[in-house]
Amino acid sequence: MRQVTAFKWVPPFAQGSVRDIRVRWALEEAGLGYDDRLIDLDERDSAAHRARQPFGQVPAYRDGEVEMFESGAIVLWIAQDSEALMPDNAAGRALVLTWLFAAMNTIEPVVAELAGIDIFHADEPWAPLRRPAVEAQLRKRLGELQAALGPRRWFTGDRFSAADILMVHVLRDLRHTDILADYPALADYVARAEARPAFRRALADQLKPFKAAEAADPALTAA
Amino acid sequence: MRQVTAFKWVPPFAQGSVRDIRVRWALEEAGLGYDDRLIDLDERDSAAHRARQPFGQVPAYRDGEVEMFESGAIVLWIAQDSEALMPDNAAGRALVLTWLFAAMNTIEPVVAELAGIDIFHADEPWAPLRRPAVEAQLRKRLGELQAALGPRRWFTGDRFSAADILMVHVLRDLRHTDILADYPALADYVARAEARPAFRRALADQLKPFKAAEAADPALTAA
Ligand SMILES: N[C@@H](CCC(=O)N[C@@H](CS)C(=O)NCC(=O)O)C(=O)O
Ligand SMILES: N[C@@H](CCC(=O)N[C@@H](CS)C(=O)NCC(=O)O)C(=O)O
Repeated sequence: MRQVTAFKWVPPFAQGSVRDIRVRWALEEAGLGYDDRLIDLDERDSAAHRARQPFGQVPAYRDGEVEMFESGAIVLWIAQDSEALMPDNAAGRALVLTWLFAAMNTIEPVVAELAGIDIFHADEPWAPLRRPAVEAQLRKRLGELQAALGPRRWFTGDRFSAADILMVHVLRDLRHTDILADYPALADYVARAEARPAFRRALADQLKPFKAAEAADPALTAA
Repeated sequence: MRQVTAFKWVPPFAQGSVRDIRVRWALEEAGLGYDDRLIDLDERDSAAHRARQPFGQVPAYRDGEVEMFESGAIVLWIAQDSEALMPDNAAGRALVLTWLFAAMNTIEPVVAELAGIDIFHADEPWAPLRRPAVEAQLRKRLGELQAALGPRRWFTGDRFSAADILMVHVLRDLRHTDILADYPALADYVARAEARPAFRRALADQLKPFKAAEAADPALTAA
């Protein structure tokens, strides 16, 4: 049986964007069932969890054949056997790989740097000195990204792919800002992806245990 | 024929670490021949180059079947057909994917943040305020990475794989510091990889045009 390791609860700023949603979404698109294995934030440093994820993070994944971590690797692993996530010809597969890595290694670093400043470091003295150049670099990349998308629905053409799961999840980490509104084709692209039933189910399934934890322990939301 | 797009010349700080070396190294390990297509730094913004690499960067790649960019995607594409870079069984392939993404999406971001501060921003007022926390985060990750390597020669066991190409290239971007010396198993790992004939050839092939450009135009090194 497929199993996804995720957190039982995370603080509100992270709810809906913890990276197990990438894997849940891929499994939903592929029509594959799975169980979730939920851990406490405290368990990040346990030997049992470190054996699954050496950096103490989520997601981790296993199925009958393999054990893995890294959201990008897991999504790609699932995609390799699913026509819903990756076409079955060389040119199409190469294009999915290209855009999947563009999401993870070109767009994510600059989105994460901006989101990190805004969410974790806003009050530190270096943050306002650094932020303008990071936002400028991000805008340069978003302009290039929007030009590359052009009139297409998805990064690999008419058909949604695994690359879109990662790209959309990365771009969603700008939703604490208005920046994406300046790139209307990208904003539409994200909205189109978020409307997919598979995304809605993945999001609901990530949030469900958080709501349950908060109902059971009101101190979580009081903090 | 396989073709790798790289730069004709880059400034000294980048020589030997431009990312086409990842692709050259993979092709050497796989025993595959290729041509390089060298562009001027000025050509980054040309329509012809943007059609190959929408962010104006290198490497780009093509072979008889596909056209791609993103060093991680290209190395993985080459690896999928080469037993020298990826074993031919599910558990082994999943492990290569996992460590390849750990290099690109867990280790690279924090290495790149530190190297960026030291190389591009050292004189900016925010840099000394920010650097200690970045170095601390990097050291945490390197400790975890060294623990995960354990007594193994390579990240996927006894056999070198595509994941090691990316991990080693990422760790090499710390060579302007002494940090890796505090993680002796990682320092040994990088040295072991750099001693491979395929790496030496890839490095020499990246450097050759730079030296030729400098011989032809002494102004390049005078600057
Ligand atoms: N590169 C990893 C990063 C995983 C990651 O950042 N996970 C976060 C949740 S989104 C986490 O577990 N954070 C808790 C922590 O780092 O302590 C991946 O894509 O899987
Ligand atoms: N995520 C991309 C990054 C490529 C990249 O950073 N390329 C650098 C050389 S190492 C480059 O072309 N820099 C020139 C520029 O950005 O203008 C990849 O891994 O291929």
